[in-house]
Amino acid sequence: MRLYTGLVHHPVYNKNREKITSAVTNLDLHDISRLSRTYGVKNFFVVTPLTDQQEFTKSLINHWKSGFGASYNVDRKEAIEVIEITASIEEAVFKIVEIEGERPVIIATCASEVKGSINFSKAKEIINSNKAVLLLFGTAWGLHDDAINSADFVLKAIKGNSDYNHLSVRAAAGIIMDRLTGHYI
Amino acid sequence: MRLYTGLVHHPVYNKNREKITSAVTNLDLHDISRLSRTYGVKNFFVVTPLTDQQEFTKSLINHWKSGFGASYNVDRKEAIEVIEITASIEEAVFKIVEIEGERPVIIATCASEVKGSINFSKAKEIINSNKAVLLLFGTAWGLHDDAINSADFVLKAIKGNSDYNHLSVRAAAGIIMDRLTGHYI
Repeated sequence: MRLYTGLVHHPVYNKNREKITSAVTNLDLHDISRLSRTYGVKNFFVVTPLTDQQEFTKSLINHWKSGFGASYNVDRKEAIEVIEITASIEEAVFKIVEIEGERPVIIATCASEVKGSINFSKAKEIINSNKAVLLLFGTAWGLHDDAINSADFVLKAIKGNSDYNHLSVRAAAGIIMDRLTGHYI
Repeated sequence: MRLYTGLVHHPVYNKNREKITSAVTNLDLHDISRLSRTYGVKNFFVVTPLTDQQEFTKSLINHWKSGFGASYNVDRKEAIEVIEITASIEEAVFKIVEIEGERPVIIATCASEVKGSINFSKAKEIINSNKAVLLLFGTAWGLHDDAINSADFVLKAIKGNSDYNHLSVRAAAGIIMDRLTGHYI
């Protein structure tokens, strides 16, 4: 498995469906890096073009990697080490090309139904074919159409047992990683 | 399906495996109420014996149910409505007895392996048999043995694709609800 995850802060939608850059959230980084580490993801890209947000992310990483946090909680250190910061989705792709020697298949995730989206079995098949794959999650009100359209595939939305589908990106990322790579009886 | 969830703040362990009461966390309530709503859970019990923490939880609920939040974000209102506050696991059980007319089967979750734990198929079978079920999640360093021992069953720990198993309770709750009640191709 050569799976990469990306948490996109730009381009995403706000509540009024305007194109924005969202703020990086401490909790998102912890939860999704721990998920990425658990499910054997090679790198978790935190995508933000804002230099102050990149600096914030760096300081968080340093706190847990070599600051007080590193000795206080070694489990967080281990998770945080999976994080890479990039200014754009394209830069994350470029970093993967450098590591893997090939362009990854980009699978975007979305909370609403997108025409032509692929189901979980199909996405699993792609990951298991040992292609390099970049799985993108959108913050705020989700990935902007620019990000959706530039992806190779869009994954079906998570449907639970109700008509309610407003999960946090942290929870959705966990469910999706588990569905695509988890094994259990 | 007559499924209930409970987020336990006492009795749980701290880092040094002492019995403590953890603080209620805003994000946990949002994420797990949204998950509970998505997966058709009847009530999500926030379990804390501390009256100040109960008050905090009540004010959070009121903000989203009838305060500014109710008109700002109706999706949160819908999720938050699933929350019930109780002082203990036993009180949550008592409330379920009042609703369902029977004692629920209590399934505790745990990040480490517990002897005699049941697998996901077995837990799914119990839920699908239409018994009332209370699924318990522990905050901090996990459910105290007192809670584990008083449960009818303990669910197998989530294993990903690595030896790392330090998920946030928010992420773990999502993965577990999806494994036990989710449907997808």
